[in-house]
Amino acid sequence: MTTLRTTVLEKINSPEDVKKLSFEEMNILADEIRQGVINRVDKVGGHLGPDLGIVEATIALHYVFDSPKDKLIFDVSHQCYPHKMLTGRKQGFLDPLNHPEISGYSNQNESVHDHFMIGHTSTSVTLATGVAKARDLKGENYNVISLIGDGSLSGGEAFEGFNNASVLNSNLIIIVNDNEMSIAENQGGLYKNLKELRDSNGTCANNWFKTFGFDYIYVEQGNNIETLIKTFSDIKDSTKPVVVHIHTLKGKGFEKAVANKEWGHWAMPGILSEESPFSETPECYETITKNYILDKVKQDKTVMAINAATPGVFWWDSEFRNKLGENYTDVGIAEQHAVGYASGLARNGAKHIFAVMTSFIQRAYDQLSQDLALNNSPATILVYWGGISSADCTHLGLFDIPLICNIPNIVYLAPTCKEEYLQMLDWSVKQNEHPVAIRVPTANYIISGEVDNTDYSILNKYKLVERGTKVAIIGLGDFFELGKEVKKELKSKLEIDATLINPRFITGIDKELLENLKSDHDIIITLENGTLDGGFGEKISRFYGSSDIKVLNYGAFKEFNDRKPMELLNERYHLTKEIIAKDIEKLI
Amino acid sequence: MTTLRTTVLEKINSPEDVKKLSFEEMNILADEIRQGVINRVDKVGGHLGPDLGIVEATIALHYVFDSPKDKLIFDVSHQCYPHKMLTGRKQGFLDPLNHPEISGYSNQNESVHDHFMIGHTSTSVTLATGVAKARDLKGENYNVISLIGDGSLSGGEAFEGFNNASVLNSNLIIIVNDNEMSIAENQGGLYKNLKELRDSNGTCANNWFKTFGFDYIYVEQGNNIETLIKTFSDIKDSTKPVVVHIHTLKGKGFEKAVANKEWGHWAMPGILSEESPFSETPECYETITKNYILDKVKQDKTVMAINAATPGVFWWDSEFRNKLGENYTDVGIAEQHAVGYASGLARNGAKHIFAVMTSFIQRAYDQLSQDLALNNSPATILVYWGGISSADCTHLGLFDIPLICNIPNIVYLAPTCKEEYLQMLDWSVKQNEHPVAIRVPTANYIISGEVDNTDYSILNKYKLVERGTKVAIIGLGDFFELGKEVKKELKSKLEIDATLINPRFITGIDKELLENLKSDHDIIITLENGTLDGGFGEKISRFYGSSDIKVLNYGAFKEFNDRKPMELLNERYHLTKEIIAKDIEKLI
Repeated sequence: MTTLRTTVLEKINSPEDVKKLSFEEMNILADEIRQGVINRVDKVGGHLGPDLGIVEATIALHYVFDSPKDKLIFDVSHQCYPHKMLTGRKQGFLDPLNHPEISGYSNQNESVHDHFMIGHTSTSVTLATGVAKARDLKGENYNVISLIGDGSLSGGEAFEGFNNASVLNSNLIIIVNDNEMSIAENQGGLYKNLKELRDSNGTCANNWFKTFGFDYIYVEQGNNIETLIKTFSDIKDSTKPVVVHIHTLKGKGFEKAVANKEWGHWAMPGILSEESPFSETPECYETITKNYILDKVKQDKTVMAINAATPGVFWWDSEFRNKLGENYTDVGIAEQHAVGYASGLARNGAKHIFAVMTSFIQRAYDQLSQDLALNNSPATILVYWGGISSADCTHLGLFDIPLICNIPNIVYLAPTCKEEYLQMLDWSVKQNEHPVAIRVPTANYIISGEVDNTDYSILNKYKLVERGTKVAIIGLGDFFELGKEVKKELKSKLEIDATLINPRFITGIDKELLENLKSDHDIIITLENGTLDGGFGEKISRFYGSSDIKVLNYGAFKEFNDRKPMELLNERYHLTKEIIAKDIEKLI
Repeated sequence: MTTLRTTVLEKINSPEDVKKLSFEEMNILADEIRQGVINRVDKVGGHLGPDLGIVEATIALHYVFDSPKDKLIFDVSHQCYPHKMLTGRKQGFLDPLNHPEISGYSNQNESVHDHFMIGHTSTSVTLATGVAKARDLKGENYNVISLIGDGSLSGGEAFEGFNNASVLNSNLIIIVNDNEMSIAENQGGLYKNLKELRDSNGTCANNWFKTFGFDYIYVEQGNNIETLIKTFSDIKDSTKPVVVHIHTLKGKGFEKAVANKEWGHWAMPGILSEESPFSETPECYETITKNYILDKVKQDKTVMAINAATPGVFWWDSEFRNKLGENYTDVGIAEQHAVGYASGLARNGAKHIFAVMTSFIQRAYDQLSQDLALNNSPATILVYWGGISSADCTHLGLFDIPLICNIPNIVYLAPTCKEEYLQMLDWSVKQNEHPVAIRVPTANYIISGEVDNTDYSILNKYKLVERGTKVAIIGLGDFFELGKEVKKELKSKLEIDATLINPRFITGIDKELLENLKSDHDIIITLENGTLDGGFGEKISRFYGSSDIKVLNYGAFKEFNDRKPMELLNERYHLTKEIIAKDIEKLI
């Protein structure tokens, strides 16, 4: 692995250097930035199409505006790779040795040219409105620029931001990067308006941006540096909020990412290899979920499969979507709507299955509580990617248990194997009593257990897998496997025959079983693949608080980790059988 | 207190009866419904102006559509009083004896004509889209009508709903009740568009609703039954989504509510008395907060006071708002924006104070986590009305502690008296290190403690108020007073000199102090004015899990209570000094 050679980019160490370039050099620079994006994504994976499409606009922004005095605020911030390359961080793209130093999102700890650490969407207009208002209060004078695109317009916070940004009586420049796509296709009426605006060169009868009172400029040539520089120069130092709607090509410069924009949105490493990105894979939770839904829809025309803009995460490819037809909705980036829509469907007798990433269900807390739980609407929510990981701090899967399990009425389930998962899913879809969420195991291989015939309508009944004495291990969901290991370790190291429990229910306590353990147990340990604060284990600690039983809760601490190695986290959180056994030994 | 006499309304027992009326009778009915609204609000308080404005539209809806086959879905649902009177629940308005039987919101347990229990805003379009989609999947045929108004359009979920509703290829009727107001004034560019639409009789150049592709009808005479009936008849059984924008008068028929629409939005009992609603009041947390902000703004032009559509809740009257001028923003119903805006302001050096009700901060979990906490933006959030109460199940103040205290980086503080509150507030506004939330005490009288010179930058340092032995009482925020009572009770009944602790920090553990208690304490009790699940006390239980100390956590159970008397709740949750002392006695 060698460093990528560049001719223009090698001279760029800060945005100041961009301003010295000729148009010809800037076009070479654009090519070299693209090579940097492709090089990095090929090695470590990342956002490909969004960054390839925004190259020219980024060069033009840095040519016209004066960062960091002028403040450039990225939405989602996954479109910031070109920006990073122009602001002193090009080695993170050109040299494989430097890849890990740079995150895939804007990060104020990396550079004075970044202002926020943001990885959830639809935030930039709101954040920029705050930054601009602070500027005005301080009597300062510079441009505040929000860059929003890639389907982010449909998220509620973006709209709330537009509504309030439009009445700010001072400078605020909103670049709407319209690449005709969200993560998958765009959804909803607003995007039809964007198409009308593109088709009419920005002149169609009803203009969503103008309804708020924004000045509005349309730029069809959103990948033309010269055009963009002229446009940005015209609106630089604008004394009122203005929207610049630029039409760009997602994936530009990388054929596969243009031909298959959904594939290219976020790509795994190896994009330069000839292998198909859609290779055959063994059975996994994604495949069994898809098969279940397809089967179910054949039997029941009211079954709906729903997601919010990320079908690829669940392997819901176009073949699957097409098979479902009317029984499928991608609501776009709109998790609040997805949950409320679930409640509406469920209360009117349809069967609703909403698949969502842990990190994004956070965007719909109030809807989970009010629209869904308070109404006891029997919808099913499949929560993917929950657990401790080496993910970016913006996409951690740690907080779903405290978020969901403390809301009344919701039943949150944690299966430990394929059979349990399918039994829970099927029970949830058939029943009419409870809103149900299921934490889909994160293992990318299937663990097969015993046949599961459990009636999950009997709530909060834990499974006593093996009755021992002295120590009881309650291993929740993914961490049931760790529980099994701990049991073996206790036997071999301390000669303890520990009790092993698979609780299955995150949202309640099996009082009878826990009470029963008191007679011949001294120590209970809980294992959960998420943050401890507000989670499952603390409820067990509370239950035993007035007894002589000692309780140890294992899980993550309350902290935002950023790409930390799993070995380090497991050590820090005591999540190995050896450390846990030693902790227990100390208490005996 | 006698039953209100009516002539037309007395014949109405279901919507079927409305269809039999002449226009003349319907106009009498409108008057009688208004008397019912006024009668009830005068006795028990409630939403006045919103209901007085929607009387004619409700009569027209029930005349034209066939509820419950046609489904009428209310937003916020505080505009459902006339609907309740026409659907078998008129006694809840006419007869004081029946007032308590009826809630102030739609409620499917009360009537088949209600479909959801909803008290947070901006939900109806989303819910209706789900209901309509379920209808289509089942092959059924009826109208689904969403009624949205009173500023709800600005909430993100409403927008997400409009975006997706617009592409539903079937019947969905959205009534936008435009009474020119939110709870206070409307905010943002969208509402300027509504004004343009009103001023142009629905014909202005850029129409927000049409940008999504909706069919659109404007009705200037939104309080004219005949006009409304004609309009609704025209669009009944529409085969595509349509928006009917009706212009109504908030507070119509009650002079004081028309003259002061903000006052009339939600009124306390006694509206028919001659006394001014703004009487002199003793010092309270609302007044000291206002005085603090006014003082602070004089010293520092970057201080911003912000709220999301409910200034009246914090007593931020127009005099206060006018004094603040540029240092005040009401973002409208847009809590997500409010929190993100806070982060933008704070990161660019302004001092941001966002006042919000407990129940509504729920609408911004992801923004608290991502926009604010992850960025460690030093904003101040004042959380009002947190605690166990007899409120409607839609407006409980129980869940803010689990919501906020499990997010990394946020410092959530619980003052117990005026001096602590002001010291915390001042520290928060001055510091630049942490996002801070303060749980404003719910006592409507001020408790004055000792002078507080605490440096709150030393995080998680609890205040040891009195060192005793055997039992330690940790009384959080509001419940510190209960802690004092319990201490006295333990002394008088059990001769125990208990330790009393005021933790002040909800978001962390004072390990040194807690560790120190182990030497001469057997029992620790925690008291918190909120739900136990995911809350403060469970963290204390976790801390002591591996020790011999016993812990009892006191607070609310995980449940949605609906207008339950406090005596009953205190009994159920063991929140009296007598019951707590007995619990402790059992453990000794």
